[in-house]
Amino acid sequence: MLQPKFARESLTTMTEMVLPNDTNTLNNLMGGRLLHWMDICAAIAAQKHSNRIVVTASVDNVSFSEPIKLGNIVTMQAKVTRGFNSSMEVNIEVWAEDIPAGTRVSTNRAFYTFVAVDQNGRPIEVPPVTPETEEEHELFKSALRRRQLRLVLAGRMKPQDATELRALFGVGDQTP
Amino acid sequence: MLQPKFARESLTTMTEMVLPNDTNTLNNLMGGRLLHWMDICAAIAAQKHSNRIVVTASVDNVSFSEPIKLGNIVTMQAKVTRGFNSSMEVNIEVWAEDIPAGTRVSTNRAFYTFVAVDQNGRPIEVPPVTPETEEEHELFKSALRRRQLRLVLAGRMKPQDATELRALFGVGDQTP
Amino acid sequence: MLQPKFARESLTTMTEMVLPNDTNTLNNLMGGRLLHWMDICAAIAAQKHSNRIVVTASVDNVSFSEPIKLGNIVTMQAKVTRGFNSSMEVNIEVWAEDIPAGTRVSTNRAFYTFVAVDQNGRPIEVPPVTPETEEEHELFKSALRRRQLRLVLAGRMKPQDATELRALFGVGDQTP
Amino acid sequence: MLQPKFARESLTTMTEMVLPNDTNTLNNLMGGRLLHWMDICAAIAAQKHSNRIVVTASVDNVSFSEPIKLGNIVTMQAKVTRGFNSSMEVNIEVWAEDIPAGTRVSTNRAFYTFVAVDQNGRPIEVPPVTPETEEEHELFKSALRRRQLRLVLAGRMKPQDATELRALFGVGDQTP
Amino acid sequence: MLQPKFARESLTTMTEMVLPNDTNTLNNLMGGRLLHWMDICAAIAAQKHSNRIVVTASVDNVSFSEPIKLGNIVTMQAKVTRGFNSSMEVNIEVWAEDIPAGTRVSTNRAFYTFVAVDQNGRPIEVPPVTPETEEEHELFKSALRRRQLRLVLAGRMKPQDATELRALFGVGDQTP
Amino acid sequence: MLQPKFARESLTTMTEMVLPNDTNTLNNLMGGRLLHWMDICAAIAAQKHSNRIVVTASVDNVSFSEPIKLGNIVTMQAKVTRGFNSSMEVNIEVWAEDIPAGTRVSTNRAFYTFVAVDQNGRPIEVPPVTPETEEEHELFKSALRRRQLRLVLAGRMKPQDATELRALFGVGDQTP
Repeated sequence: MLQPKFARESLTTMTEMVLPNDTNTLNNLMGGRLLHWMDICAAIAAQKHSNRIVVTASVDNVSFSEPIKLGNIVTMQAKVTRGFNSSMEVNIEVWAEDIPAGTRVSTNRAFYTFVAVDQNGRPIEVPPVTPETEEEHELFKSALRRRQLRLVLAGRMKPQDATELRALFGVGDQTP
Repeated sequence: MLQPKFARESLTTMTEMVLPNDTNTLNNLMGGRLLHWMDICAAIAAQKHSNRIVVTASVDNVSFSEPIKLGNIVTMQAKVTRGFNSSMEVNIEVWAEDIPAGTRVSTNRAFYTFVAVDQNGRPIEVPPVTPETEEEHELFKSALRRRQLRLVLAGRMKPQDATELRALFGVGDQTP
Repeated sequence: MLQPKFARESLTTMTEMVLPNDTNTLNNLMGGRLLHWMDICAAIAAQKHSNRIVVTASVDNVSFSEPIKLGNIVTMQAKVTRGFNSSMEVNIEVWAEDIPAGTRVSTNRAFYTFVAVDQNGRPIEVPPVTPETEEEHELFKSALRRRQLRLVLAGRMKPQDATELRALFGVGDQTP
Repeated sequence: MLQPKFARESLTTMTEMVLPNDTNTLNNLMGGRLLHWMDICAAIAAQKHSNRIVVTASVDNVSFSEPIKLGNIVTMQAKVTRGFNSSMEVNIEVWAEDIPAGTRVSTNRAFYTFVAVDQNGRPIEVPPVTPETEEEHELFKSALRRRQLRLVLAGRMKPQDATELRALFGVGDQTP
Repeated sequence: MLQPKFARESLTTMTEMVLPNDTNTLNNLMGGRLLHWMDICAAIAAQKHSNRIVVTASVDNVSFSEPIKLGNIVTMQAKVTRGFNSSMEVNIEVWAEDIPAGTRVSTNRAFYTFVAVDQNGRPIEVPPVTPETEEEHELFKSALRRRQLRLVLAGRMKPQDATELRALFGVGDQTP
Repeated sequence: MLQPKFARESLTTMTEMVLPNDTNTLNNLMGGRLLHWMDICAAIAAQKHSNRIVVTASVDNVSFSEPIKLGNIVTMQAKVTRGFNSSMEVNIEVWAEDIPAGTRVSTNRAFYTFVAVDQNGRPIEVPPVTPETEEEHELFKSALRRRQLRLVLAGRMKPQDATELRALFGVGDQTP
């Protein structure tokens, strides 16, 4: 097994200014552009953790509740939460600032999964993650449940085998 | 209630050629770029259904299993599956073609949700969807379950109230 | 001779949303951007017909009569009309939609010509086109006249040898 | 009538470096990108002549005979040839240089037509062109013939009324 | 006078991945692209300090000694060093990482100056900077000398009045 | 030593139209975008002089005094001033035109330095420059002083050894 690395070693901060071509006719940032930025930011965090080329394996459900305006500054912070063989889950948080107005709003949180690959594109092992802060520990633990949901949604795990998820829906206690 | 519209009236086809700046160091399309294209294609379908400006509300879990190469042609087809008050779910399917090699692979299926808004950005009612084909009927029906999952993941519905989801995890029959 | 292919086998649909950087100071789509999109759409149709890498050989006269506005959806449909040794003529039609306003206007029709090439960039034979619909038959037939005009304009055919064109200018009947 | 201006007063030189995203899989500049650059260069020349906002009205047949490689320097020179009420014809010439190899090739000549418009997008009169050099005189004269061809191709003039074109096809002498 | 702010309050981190279109024919990042990224990063720091729209006033001499390769991760950190009425000097440092190779190199340090403006583009006062760390104190102090050099180079100060600069060239001691 | 070349042989003219994505929230061209365009224009001039691949070595202090508006036409002219072994200094001048308003303003002058390299990225000798006009002679002469300033600022020359610069600060006469 590879030498474990701290979650914080993969911390990546990315900042973007919302330009006209990033916006819809209401002058708000388009969701797809943000998904694109988040993918690049999260991929760099996964690269830092694995010291490998990485490819996006999946993105979990992302909600867009706050409109982000033209001219706003978007800050993203990504950090690897946990490794699974050759894949890594990355947590990414997004804030939008209207600096002249002095406002800063948390707009999104998302989880992207990446696979580390060698020069021929074949999956290759990644180091385990050592969480330190309370939040890192919580994300490390809940990564299992999110992984089960991904496998179920991709049709690669039967819902009844997803023990972490079943517990969430109050099913665990009914099992004899 | 608005006059219902057929699912097929929102059908949108988008084609993109994978250019160098869309690729990573393995010459494969980056996941974030594809998420961006899918968002635009799905938004146009939602616009066609609602005849309104639309904003992305969420994207469901998306998996990337097949690498898409530089020079490939990416074809996307989006169609609204169901409307919920001011929001619409859009199903989008993606194929990648290597035309000189004569190969065409189904690479992704995703669900994006959009909210129709008026000129001031306030949510506004959308027409119901009338499914016609068998696949449209199936997508119309399963839209409820996906909607519950979105609400649970966004913390806006308790897992135990998600009756459609509970059934999926084999819990429905235990309710008295 | 290669196995003929149907015109419809090359049908390619491309959809673009007009973004701020695509527009002039009147907020209308710039002609050059549209020519660029049409070239990509037509090139994909030519690739589908020939299963080869293709290079643009020429674009016929294109007129821009209708302004296309910021936020409009531009839909392009391209189909190969006829093959000539290693070159193919592609017909491309363009519509612009203002979806919230519920308008859809036919804005352009153009003909691009492509040459199929091998990996070293050398011209290589393409399959003949088999037209099916009445419109495909008409486009197949008139392709000869357009080809003569291209050759005359490129200085590679003498006007008096362009029999199809001469007829157009009412000269045919004077020849004994 | 407005005060005439010299052709040379509209001279516009534009230089572009061919970057990876401008090229196809053979590493050659895509035709559509070049059409886009030429449109911008020619539009600036038309702006200089008319001191107005201009919109592209048409582009004449353009042939692409020489491949332009990644890293080449593309130089374009545009100059108004003649004015017609609110429209202007612009001649644009293109060269490609491979500077380390010391080669410079003339690759394209094209004619774009622009309409001058006021702030509401309505056509507005442009100054006449005063040609000076022999080439400017030749382009000024032949502009009539090209204009007739455009009108015939756009279905706005009957071929038999295109006297300049008829002469080209050897028809003029047969008219009594 | 406005309430002073700490230098660290303006700290801005930006991360970019070097893509094909950012590189020259040696596959190295082009200097102009880096200058563009640095300008955006530094402008955001200046916005954070002043809570105003800012416009670039000048960039000091920038040297490019280390080639940055395609696929490298470029990290920039910007922080305001000192305010002068309506202008602010921003120090920006740049690192390039080849993550799979495990290398990280300091590639550039630069100083950009910005002017804070109101909605009509008129200069407006900015808060003074309170340095805390030793490096911040050093940058605060040397900002005066860099400002004199800028004024001399812009022809807005006579070299003999630039007392800070004269000292640098060993002239101070000769003044009586 | 290589055969000298005239300064004018490297003259390069580049024209850009300011598009929405090039501007800040005041609709003015962002400084970083202009620095990027100037780098490309100056690099082409250096390529023309050396017939080599060139890499940016440095840019001198650049001031931005005039706002350049959305829709303006930016014209740049670059010419090599002098060669130093494998490096060349390029002078670049920038004008902005608001063509409908009939105004043309000189906005910037800058000096970029480039190094000519072979296919392996190693510095290689460049031809000397032969100035012809009075302005070219002046730029050729003052290039020495600017070069000393660059070396001092890069920490590669001691201020007291920069004889050309010392003279500027009125130190020369005090040397015995």
